[in-house]
Amino acid sequence: MSKPTPLSGFPELLPEQKFVEQRVTDSLRRTFELHGFAPVETRAVEPLDNLLRKGETSKEVYVLRRLQADPEQADTDAGIGLHFDLTVPFARYVLENAGKLEFPFRRYQIQKAWRGERPQEGRYREFAQADIDVVMKDELPFHFDIEVARVMAEALSVLPLPPMKLRVNNRKLIEGFYRGIGASDPAEVIRIVDKLDKLPSTTVAEMLVAEAGLSEEQAKQCLSLAEISARDTSFVDQVRALGVEHDLLTRGLEELAAVVEGCSSVNGDRFSVEASLSLARGLDYYTGTVFEIFMEGFEFLKSVGGGGRYDALASDGKTTYPGVGISFGISRTLVPLLSRGVLAGSRAVPSAVLVALPDEASRPLSDAVAQQLRAGGVPAEVAAAPQKFGKQIRYAERRGIPFVWFFGADENGAATDHQVKDIRSGEQTPADPATWQPPAEDLVPAVLTQQSPDKEQHS
Amino acid sequence: MSKPTPLSGFPELLPEQKFVEQRVTDSLRRTFELHGFAPVETRAVEPLDNLLRKGETSKEVYVLRRLQADPEQADTDAGIGLHFDLTVPFARYVLENAGKLEFPFRRYQIQKAWRGERPQEGRYREFAQADIDVVMKDELPFHFDIEVARVMAEALSVLPLPPMKLRVNNRKLIEGFYRGIGASDPAEVIRIVDKLDKLPSTTVAEMLVAEAGLSEEQAKQCLSLAEISARDTSFVDQVRALGVEHDLLTRGLEELAAVVEGCSSVNGDRFSVEASLSLARGLDYYTGTVFEIFMEGFEFLKSVGGGGRYDALASDGKTTYPGVGISFGISRTLVPLLSRGVLAGSRAVPSAVLVALPDEASRPLSDAVAQQLRAGGVPAEVAAAPQKFGKQIRYAERRGIPFVWFFGADENGAATDHQVKDIRSGEQTPADPATWQPPAEDLVPAVLTQQSPDKEQHS
Repeated sequence: MSKPTPLSGFPELLPEQKFVEQRVTDSLRRTFELHGFAPVETRAVEPLDNLLRKGETSKEVYVLRRLQADPEQADTDAGIGLHFDLTVPFARYVLENAGKLEFPFRRYQIQKAWRGERPQEGRYREFAQADIDVVMKDELPFHFDIEVARVMAEALSVLPLPPMKLRVNNRKLIEGFYRGIGASDPAEVIRIVDKLDKLPSTTVAEMLVAEAGLSEEQAKQCLSLAEISARDTSFVDQVRALGVEHDLLTRGLEELAAVVEGCSSVNGDRFSVEASLSLARGLDYYTGTVFEIFMEGFEFLKSVGGGGRYDALASDGKTTYPGVGISFGISRTLVPLLSRGVLAGSRAVPSAVLVALPDEASRPLSDAVAQQLRAGGVPAEVAAAPQKFGKQIRYAERRGIPFVWFFGADENGAATDHQVKDIRSGEQTPADPATWQPPAEDLVPAVLTQQSPDKEQHS
Repeated sequence: MSKPTPLSGFPELLPEQKFVEQRVTDSLRRTFELHGFAPVETRAVEPLDNLLRKGETSKEVYVLRRLQADPEQADTDAGIGLHFDLTVPFARYVLENAGKLEFPFRRYQIQKAWRGERPQEGRYREFAQADIDVVMKDELPFHFDIEVARVMAEALSVLPLPPMKLRVNNRKLIEGFYRGIGASDPAEVIRIVDKLDKLPSTTVAEMLVAEAGLSEEQAKQCLSLAEISARDTSFVDQVRALGVEHDLLTRGLEELAAVVEGCSSVNGDRFSVEASLSLARGLDYYTGTVFEIFMEGFEFLKSVGGGGRYDALASDGKTTYPGVGISFGISRTLVPLLSRGVLAGSRAVPSAVLVALPDEASRPLSDAVAQQLRAGGVPAEVAAAPQKFGKQIRYAERRGIPFVWFFGADENGAATDHQVKDIRSGEQTPADPATWQPPAEDLVPAVLTQQSPDKEQHS
């Protein structure tokens, strides 16, 4: 086999990068669980009819077949494909297990998904994401909209990532506004206003007139609404100043104000929550709150997450399951940051200590020392070969292992005279393998950030 | 959508079961990392030519195609399939990244794989496994055979599972023995002896005569060798007593004795390591040590793991990468244990505490109390609705949440008079949300074992 080449759209990480991803997923999981969200993992595949219920994604689905499927049994496998998000499989999981779940059901799901779309930075054919959702039977109280926003905000604000912004809007608010100005087809207005991030506002205004049948004055009001954004509830007065009245608008303003207000405790430098009235999210199953997440300095990635409320996440004909949730793109965020060196792991192995090997006959001694360190929770490995100590130190250096452990042997052949060397400073001190601990920041690989790769570390 | 039915061979877990799997994978990961094994995760797909290099597995591969692939661009996607194990993708990863890895390279990989085979208990079409391997350039010292056995033994012995047995043999030993008795085609003898777990020994003896051209006396010696097993190095004398001499046999005996000897510290009640001279493992890329793992009381699952040494894990024509490793079947082990109730999670949510909600207006107070608990590392959720306290307690009960938190409000509307109730005992005591901790065994969902589902808990 000659040297293989990477497969476009299927990113893989080196071990030192994988540590960073692990730190991120561990941290997300911890926050979600602290808030009572239970883990769910769904199979990678779904029946095609479940994947294709929303026609727009059909061209992205990877379909599976067994290479040597027996034609007579072909239907056993026929019609399954890889899931392209975690919402479709979760909705199916809720229906399938409804009798065994307690509602409201809070779940998180950190898993891969696949889309056969054209790869580009931040958009991959295989990608990991982290979703949280709360699902209820029949009716889902509004306070869960605030809860999912706050949980995701807290989860992202403690990650070692560039500052993030959660933009929030409300479909009732914009639909009520468009109805209030007399638009006959609010869905069409939403579709056109949603293009504001790609097209100049004059073009959007022309489209609103030509395609949504608005007057120029109505189109102008739509753009005025879209221009409003605020990190507090001051947007309410700005919207009211536009002089439009509609019950849905009133309800939407209340809900959006409640989300922004409810997130005030997490609103800060590393994470901000902003009412952003241009946000629409094209998908028409959202019925109230909508979210999108952006990363500072990486706006070219577009949103790195999003979500909202859907009044019918799933339905079996008798019972309807409304939900509200947010998804965060782990691969979309981390792969660009890692490949650009904005984030890096501090070493390529988990080992904090390399136990030196004086000679091959001493391997059981070195093994025993390493095992004592591990019993104290310190990751350790033994040198692969009894090279000169200078070479063993370089062995550690190449892997980023910060400490090398030396020892002698007493007259009975037991290990003695233990010394630990910090190979960065060169400092060597006596130590007891049963009790020694490295500084906390050296115990496990650290996440280094570009600003100051040598010093700045996030835990 | 009507109620979906499960897909045969694609097991999914309920949240309370998923906690058990998480506990197992977290524990495996911790042991592997303490021993310096670095994490690798490979993409789910490989080029078909890489998957099919070993013809025997070809019929199990799931091939991918994009549902609406453009015929003119079909070759972009053509020829990729889901990996059916973690060894093939790891070998490719090593070749692809050889210039960026340090050798010896210790890696663990905990991930799913897919095989389109007929599903049965313990054999799934989608399954998770945990692999460890050590890979070197050109030559891999023998002591790594001992290391991987010891690391996997340690990793499995601390899991809350039925006792496990690691059976070990050595291909040099058996090949040398067969050569020593004058067998002209040792590979054929290995293939036939490998059937001893399915066929009676008399049938195997007849096959050895008829198909491998052995005399009855030679066949008898082969069976005598296969009968030998021992948890210590006493097997060496038993083999020598058969009076066969061959250099390969001598080398194999030394190696097998070294593995058994090297694992003596982990040999115990919950985990045993046994030299088992009938073990061959059909796959012909193993060149020395071979391993299989069995679970007590679940021998019908056959091996729940296995591995060995391969002198050419990967090769790019110039450099050869030998390796030694062991794989453990997570789904194969856990899904039967969970579905039979041998293992269960103690609750369906991570929350250790349900914070009561006196009335809807008090939600900010309840939220603040929950947040104080979370700041102390205690998973907590707030009751979904301000029902009567009896109903809120039953809400906690249904989810297995052990504690319910009550509070009052002082004249300024601040929370006061905090009380925590253990709903199992009914005991209610005053507590401070800023410092209160549940007993350690209640902090996170526990793993319950069948022997005594109410009491016995493993951490």
